[in-house]
Amino acid sequence: MEGVDILPHERSKKQFDVDAMKIVWAGSRHAFEVSDRMARLVASDPAFQKDNRSRLGRKELFKNTLRKATYAWKRIIELRLTEEEAGRLRFFVDEPAFTDLHWGMFVPAIKGQGTEEQQQKWLPLAYKMQIIGCYAQTELGHGSNVQGLETTATFDPDKDEFVIHSPTLTSSKWWPGGLGKVSTHAVVYARLITNGEEYGVHGFIVQLRSLDDHMPLPGITIGDIGMKFGNGAYNTMDNGVLTFDHVRIPRNQMLMRVFQVTREGKCVQSNVPRQLIYGTMVFVRQTIVADASSALSRAVCIATRYSAVRRQFGSQDGVETQVIDYKTQQNRLFPLLASAYAFRFVGEWLKWLYTDVTQRLQANDFSTLPEAHACTAGLKSLTTTATADAIEECRKLCGGHGYLCASGLPELFAVYVPACTYEGDNVVLLLQVARFLVKTVSQLGSGKEPIGTTAYLGRVQDLMQCRCEVQTAEDWLKPSVMLEAFEARSARMCVARAQNLSKFANPEDGFAELSADLVEAAVAHCQLIVVSKFFDKLQQDIPGNGVKQQLQNLCYIYALNLLHKHLGDFLSTGCITPKQASLANDQLRSLYSQVRPNAIALVDAFNYTDHYLGSVLGRYDGNVYPKLYEEAWKDPLNDSVLPDGYNEYIRPMLKQQLHNARL
Amino acid sequence: MEGVDILPHERSKKQFDVDAMKIVWAGSRHAFEVSDRMARLVASDPAFQKDNRSRLGRKELFKNTLRKATYAWKRIIELRLTEEEAGRLRFFVDEPAFTDLHWGMFVPAIKGQGTEEQQQKWLPLAYKMQIIGCYAQTELGHGSNVQGLETTATFDPDKDEFVIHSPTLTSSKWWPGGLGKVSTHAVVYARLITNGEEYGVHGFIVQLRSLDDHMPLPGITIGDIGMKFGNGAYNTMDNGVLTFDHVRIPRNQMLMRVFQVTREGKCVQSNVPRQLIYGTMVFVRQTIVADASSALSRAVCIATRYSAVRRQFGSQDGVETQVIDYKTQQNRLFPLLASAYAFRFVGEWLKWLYTDVTQRLQANDFSTLPEAHACTAGLKSLTTTATADAIEECRKLCGGHGYLCASGLPELFAVYVPACTYEGDNVVLLLQVARFLVKTVSQLGSGKEPIGTTAYLGRVQDLMQCRCEVQTAEDWLKPSVMLEAFEARSARMCVARAQNLSKFANPEDGFAELSADLVEAAVAHCQLIVVSKFFDKLQQDIPGNGVKQQLQNLCYIYALNLLHKHLGDFLSTGCITPKQASLANDQLRSLYSQVRPNAIALVDAFNYTDHYLGSVLGRYDGNVYPKLYEEAWKDPLNDSVLPDGYNEYIRPMLKQQLHNARL
Repeated sequence: MEGVDILPHERSKKQFDVDAMKIVWAGSRHAFEVSDRMARLVASDPAFQKDNRSRLGRKELFKNTLRKATYAWKRIIELRLTEEEAGRLRFFVDEPAFTDLHWGMFVPAIKGQGTEEQQQKWLPLAYKMQIIGCYAQTELGHGSNVQGLETTATFDPDKDEFVIHSPTLTSSKWWPGGLGKVSTHAVVYARLITNGEEYGVHGFIVQLRSLDDHMPLPGITIGDIGMKFGNGAYNTMDNGVLTFDHVRIPRNQMLMRVFQVTREGKCVQSNVPRQLIYGTMVFVRQTIVADASSALSRAVCIATRYSAVRRQFGSQDGVETQVIDYKTQQNRLFPLLASAYAFRFVGEWLKWLYTDVTQRLQANDFSTLPEAHACTAGLKSLTTTATADAIEECRKLCGGHGYLCASGLPELFAVYVPACTYEGDNVVLLLQVARFLVKTVSQLGSGKEPIGTTAYLGRVQDLMQCRCEVQTAEDWLKPSVMLEAFEARSARMCVARAQNLSKFANPEDGFAELSADLVEAAVAHCQLIVVSKFFDKLQQDIPGNGVKQQLQNLCYIYALNLLHKHLGDFLSTGCITPKQASLANDQLRSLYSQVRPNAIALVDAFNYTDHYLGSVLGRYDGNVYPKLYEEAWKDPLNDSVLPDGYNEYIRPMLKQQLHNARL
Repeated sequence: MEGVDILPHERSKKQFDVDAMKIVWAGSRHAFEVSDRMARLVASDPAFQKDNRSRLGRKELFKNTLRKATYAWKRIIELRLTEEEAGRLRFFVDEPAFTDLHWGMFVPAIKGQGTEEQQQKWLPLAYKMQIIGCYAQTELGHGSNVQGLETTATFDPDKDEFVIHSPTLTSSKWWPGGLGKVSTHAVVYARLITNGEEYGVHGFIVQLRSLDDHMPLPGITIGDIGMKFGNGAYNTMDNGVLTFDHVRIPRNQMLMRVFQVTREGKCVQSNVPRQLIYGTMVFVRQTIVADASSALSRAVCIATRYSAVRRQFGSQDGVETQVIDYKTQQNRLFPLLASAYAFRFVGEWLKWLYTDVTQRLQANDFSTLPEAHACTAGLKSLTTTATADAIEECRKLCGGHGYLCASGLPELFAVYVPACTYEGDNVVLLLQVARFLVKTVSQLGSGKEPIGTTAYLGRVQDLMQCRCEVQTAEDWLKPSVMLEAFEARSARMCVARAQNLSKFANPEDGFAELSADLVEAAVAHCQLIVVSKFFDKLQQDIPGNGVKQQLQNLCYIYALNLLHKHLGDFLSTGCITPKQASLANDQLRSLYSQVRPNAIALVDAFNYTDHYLGSVLGRYDGNVYPKLYEEAWKDPLNDSVLPDGYNEYIRPMLKQQLHNARL
């Protein structure tokens, strides 16, 4: 069987209802329908074509994105799309653009940090895109540490204005997307100075460019920061540099919902709780986890389909073996497939968590906030690191052809990896989680009950002593057994780290010295969360023939693969024995065999269009090789038979006439 | 302390003789001097400028590379460089080009597989570049499995010619570098057919393009396969597609050193041993390991210097902490620094191994070949996988700025990763190693003594029983203790895998089913080789103040970090106890502190010019931020204040006049 016959044959082997799984993946029938409609709308409109991206130079690429973003906005208006639909449409357009920052950061910043009047003034302009905004926080010398920002906003009581200024080179704003060439306004973060005193970092709405001719306003120097990873990827975005030379703005452009400066230059804390900001963080990180499952599932879909199409070695009857049939391939691929589902479900749960936190904040209940904050920080770190690694692994799983831009994977990797750094560097976030865990453990004796995802630490005595009861490979298929193993591992690692810390006279010195160990405990805790939320999902009513069985298989693959990868943790803490680890491996292999006939259907359930996948290797019809061949000829180098430079360089070399070469 | 003062201050802290270390790194004073001279020659010549690469479109980029490669060749002739010098010059030009394949694959293929007459005819042409050659092996549908190639070479006794033909789309040659636009000739691999019988895959010299006008010859369709990962990277190379429509070549263009076709079309095996081909493989893979240490050291140099320059958080006296002082940073960075040195030394040893194998082959001694072959396959896999991952890790260690092309790291990653796939997919290679190990273990009782890197398996009885004697963290600093732990781990894993295999009725079924486990045993064995060659290096006479001490620290960091990462292996086989693992961690932290003051000097010892590093973050003078700022303005988007597309797209959007937009 060859080419276009393979995937239909694969699909005929499936043992579950794919349409039902599509609903499960989307989260609800409504979500499925909106996504499906928007995906088709984008895929069927030639204006959104994207397969030429990697061949464009920077200027063409950028201009092309301006066109698409504007066109998308036009369609959103014409079709009177809802906010949800517009968001999905932008998602499927699948090209980083200034609009991402406008809708994703500028508007939310005003909503979250602006007063009622500020919202009334600025939001209508932003909603109609009469102004375009970005989010200017990071500086050339300052990333993760917001409190270290250098830009100043000095209040001038004479004129009732703030003076925004960049005192040093390293204080130049650096990275904000949409800043370099497009935005007319920015929310700028700067150190507030009034009456000669500093009052921390706050946000200010600053107009950057004239609304008449788009020229930068006086005192403002602004530009693009240059090429980034990948040939398409984020080079569609004008990440920018910005310096201020004593730029004046009215006092009422400081975002004053939580902290105000009066006409006289006095600082007043409003009665709005500061913790609201953490609510926003929970929201943003929840979307990052959802995006992780999208990016990961996309890579897995490509690699899975091509692993079925591709044959190599092992010729029985002259036909080579499909590479998806190799256990080494399954052992790398199927855990990533399982991770895609796992991250999807933990992302769904985070959505619920955000709603819960928001309701509590509105009721002035801040009790769950630290736990929710640690949990989202950890899950952001865990899922983005795993996804970036997984995309690259999927690329390698496609062999040499994964290196071609036509595979879609190089650009997916390049466009995804910044997620490991933005909105909190992943290691810095894990240290925050570790700090929270150590604190939780230290308070265990005090009667303060750990809550939410740390509730299991309340059973720490049991977890320090429990013994894994696995005696056969099948025993690993008991949720209680698996959860206990993960809980015990995490609890024992946390307690051991806390004990090691207590040996230091200065806790901060200990924390610094043992930070690498602490990060590992944080990872263990976060993996437990993902595993337990997957089990929670399985407890729900899941309609559709065979769907639940497939999810169960994936859940156990996710957990058992982690157990194998982090075996050192489980063995060194005595949570399981080497024999039990070996049985876990046996079970894992058996699960791979169960997933194998369903693999193609499990990635079909993501319901991705060929447009969204953007991969010749991942085509729904499996017609890979003819299309790869066709695609090759589109390269600019193939415009002419003789390459530019033949006469100047190649010919003189071949003719031994280098003195004639234009060197 | 800021900017340009930081690195000089760091350098003043070093505790060893950097100049002596430079010689150790280079391998000899002679090698150092050649490299140093060539590096400076390239760096000082504006014709070799490369910092604009990521901003060029495909055609410009490619033309620019043609210019550089031709210019390099002109300089090589003018300066009468030796082969060694020319090789180093091309290395420091640091841009994939058709010349790589000409010198690295085409010429060696003729040397290795051509008869005396063939060498006399073709080599002088190639040496003068009167012809340019490439190496056409892989096909659209066939990568790793050379025996699966579809291109045919059918002997026509009437005309004394071979007919080269591509019978299917998937038989199109695909990937060969230099093929798409430049090469006049290729060594083409095809299935030999004569008298209606197939005789396996052989190499043929085929002219592709006219030497008059460079047009493809009749029957030959040829082009570039399109964009690849990264914006510069391998897009400077014309990886090509090639199909043959019954192309005729004279019989004497089959490479006939080992296998001949007579005038009558009969096949004759020559008396030259076939194993010679494996000698070539050992050579090629040895260069790949050497390249791994170069690429890795380059990334580590950038990340280490920038980690010293960059400050974040932890403000004592208002100055933030250098990120290199964080243990989490050290725990990620220093093992990579250690790996760079480890790979350098194992690469050096592989050079010796190649000489040894060659001498034995010439004396008709094939006894060491299987072991040498397995060993180089494994080390190729181990070092390239580790290096690819390490470059990306170094990029992340630079925070957000690592994502800028100006950091040099995105392009280094994109240009390096194919090494994981070419010359043997890394997983396929590990399976070969595993097969060899299983065979070695199965023969242990038979009196056949394991040799070379598998000699330790001869002590398998001891290794199955030995107990690690570590009682304090310092005990880990004994070479015998460390080596025994790694030997025992590898031996026990091999034996356990072999036992599991023996439970299968059909060994091949068992091998397929357990392949993922077998790969892990192969990795354990290869890591042992690297560790033991590092210890061997330390046994040598190492001149220079403090140099040996530094190398010792790095050796233990390399080994202890592996021990920690693969703790599951060590614990599940009972090689060490959890307590000993914990002591190993303590020792590792202590070693980080010892490396810290020497870190900058240890990367200075690589002796890389700023040109070769190609990184604003890794600049020797540490003047990072002003140069990043300067670099930004060179982006084409900054050519004009208003971006292309403002009038067509942005203005109509802002002015609510989308009907005027050119969409």
